[in-house]
Amino acid sequence: MDIKEIGEFGLIQRIADNYQSSHPTVISGMGEDAAALKISEQKILLATCDLLLEDIHFNLSLTDSYHLGRKSLAVNLSDIAAMGGTPRFFLVSLAIPSHISVEFIDDLYRGIMEMAGEFNTQLVGGDTNASPDKLMIDITLLGEVDPNHILKRSGTQVGDSIFVTGTLGDSALGFFALEIDNNLNQTLSINTLTLRHISPYPRIEEGKVIAENHLASAMIDISDGLLADLKQILTLNKVGATVWTSQIPLSNDFKQFQIKQEHNKLDFALKGGEDYELLFTSPKTKEKDIYGLSQKIKVPISKIGEINSSGKLVVLDQNQKLYHIDDQGYDHFSSSNKPRF
Amino acid sequence: MDIKEIGEFGLIQRIADNYQSSHPTVISGMGEDAAALKISEQKILLATCDLLLEDIHFNLSLTDSYHLGRKSLAVNLSDIAAMGGTPRFFLVSLAIPSHISVEFIDDLYRGIMEMAGEFNTQLVGGDTNASPDKLMIDITLLGEVDPNHILKRSGTQVGDSIFVTGTLGDSALGFFALEIDNNLNQTLSINTLTLRHISPYPRIEEGKVIAENHLASAMIDISDGLLADLKQILTLNKVGATVWTSQIPLSNDFKQFQIKQEHNKLDFALKGGEDYELLFTSPKTKEKDIYGLSQKIKVPISKIGEINSSGKLVVLDQNQKLYHIDDQGYDHFSSSNKPRF
Repeated sequence: MDIKEIGEFGLIQRIADNYQSSHPTVISGMGEDAAALKISEQKILLATCDLLLEDIHFNLSLTDSYHLGRKSLAVNLSDIAAMGGTPRFFLVSLAIPSHISVEFIDDLYRGIMEMAGEFNTQLVGGDTNASPDKLMIDITLLGEVDPNHILKRSGTQVGDSIFVTGTLGDSALGFFALEIDNNLNQTLSINTLTLRHISPYPRIEEGKVIAENHLASAMIDISDGLLADLKQILTLNKVGATVWTSQIPLSNDFKQFQIKQEHNKLDFALKGGEDYELLFTSPKTKEKDIYGLSQKIKVPISKIGEINSSGKLVVLDQNQKLYHIDDQGYDHFSSSNKPRF
Repeated sequence: MDIKEIGEFGLIQRIADNYQSSHPTVISGMGEDAAALKISEQKILLATCDLLLEDIHFNLSLTDSYHLGRKSLAVNLSDIAAMGGTPRFFLVSLAIPSHISVEFIDDLYRGIMEMAGEFNTQLVGGDTNASPDKLMIDITLLGEVDPNHILKRSGTQVGDSIFVTGTLGDSALGFFALEIDNNLNQTLSINTLTLRHISPYPRIEEGKVIAENHLASAMIDISDGLLADLKQILTLNKVGATVWTSQIPLSNDFKQFQIKQEHNKLDFALKGGEDYELLFTSPKTKEKDIYGLSQKIKVPISKIGEINSSGKLVVLDQNQKLYHIDDQGYDHFSSSNKPRF
């Protein structure tokens, strides 16, 4: 059977169905942003890995090696953020094709280590190999979290509100701007938007404070796109949701950047991947505390919808009409290697 | 600068020189078989990753996916063995090209999970992606070890004896048989030898019992070839060594398998990679205990040489004459992707 028939998510589900560990030390394994492993009474070890492949996840004509280094650790940090954890140690596996220079690797590591330094995270090992063709970066990040503070994708209840940090769609629109519609008249916005794509910043501090203050019932980071990642929460918790497009937080740069198919622009915020914002659900009783936190830490936190028992995801436009959704994310086994717009 | 100018080991050294962590929780980082991380007073966390790339580390015409799965975990288990540790959890990153079927992945995981089951090790996560071209398997394995039992590459003293478990060269000769000199008249030996190559077995139990009985001053697993891995120990400990070819343990299959350049056959045992045996140094006072252990666990442990203060590695043949060595291992950035014979 061709993997395209079941897709990336189907393949992962197949592996999880067959091999999910039921060992008592494994609090959560496959299906979470990071594995949660009970290594002592006081501490849960978190472990996550993210693989970045040339011409699938990055294009060397659209990023420099320093930012690629930052991003390759940032996407892992974002997984630890989604569990409310603190990053501690990481290992770097590299497969390096012959067209890559020592200077490129130096800059890649400079980016990795600067990002690591911002979160006091230690490089402790890895594996370095020649690659026959493409550059490949696989980082495994270990973190920790107090058993009383850990957040998972499960825990959402009917009636919960749905929140997101920051703004959505900047990364996808920035990628689009870089790749398809590079308009020199919009240089400033392009730079801000494209930086969100080539150099995302993980919400480590935000994830910790949300977890430590027990503000969320479930949390996930937005890597595959808002609707795709929300669907993960809905499916796992066997609930439905309504999302209001009018409440999707958009940056000024996003709003100002003009594209030819302006009527589709919101799709970048709904379906575009790699925002690396946090998506979480919370009981209504927590709303005031959440808005208070948002003001205190000076990071926007927006309520974008509500959980219900329908089992379906419904997106409503500003007129409360159904917003049409073609597909809900990004499948690495799709015919195109790019977000499908 | 082209990476070929400094090579794989040079590149790793460059990264380690620049970025080796001095954080108090990092007992050992880069440069050991696994990172050793102090996560509590009673426990050291071990973390290692090994990347296997199609057409660099394996050839799909020479192995099946089940054995490839077994091997991809085994090479990581071997790193934990070298530290005297117990494997606990692992994550699997896959980059899958379009020519790979769902059935191939099923068999790959069957191999991985059977090997995991033999060492009570839990699959807890990973990352699955499409690959533009080649299959790539990167496993990160976490283990643990008692702080009183951990073994490292450092600790070797002048006067120590050098030991290896099992037999050497089977894997490299098996690879040679498969690739270059497949002689149907020698089927039986080929099968035994090639199995050592396509399905190595990690010395977890042996590593633990050596560590727990304080029988070694330093230990490493033999992945890059006896002389290359011994050199790692010598360089790190600023010592030299004499190795006697007459004492290199060879299997009956190795001895019986005939090659055209019979005078070079010993090179497979000295320089061939991927034996995944343990190489360790020990004070002379431990020799009796080591031979006793060997008998008890029914695994050959052979003294192959001695540590001295010369700073050089000298290999002596059966007539105590210098044995000529062209090069001492396997560099993934060498012009050939295969062990150089």
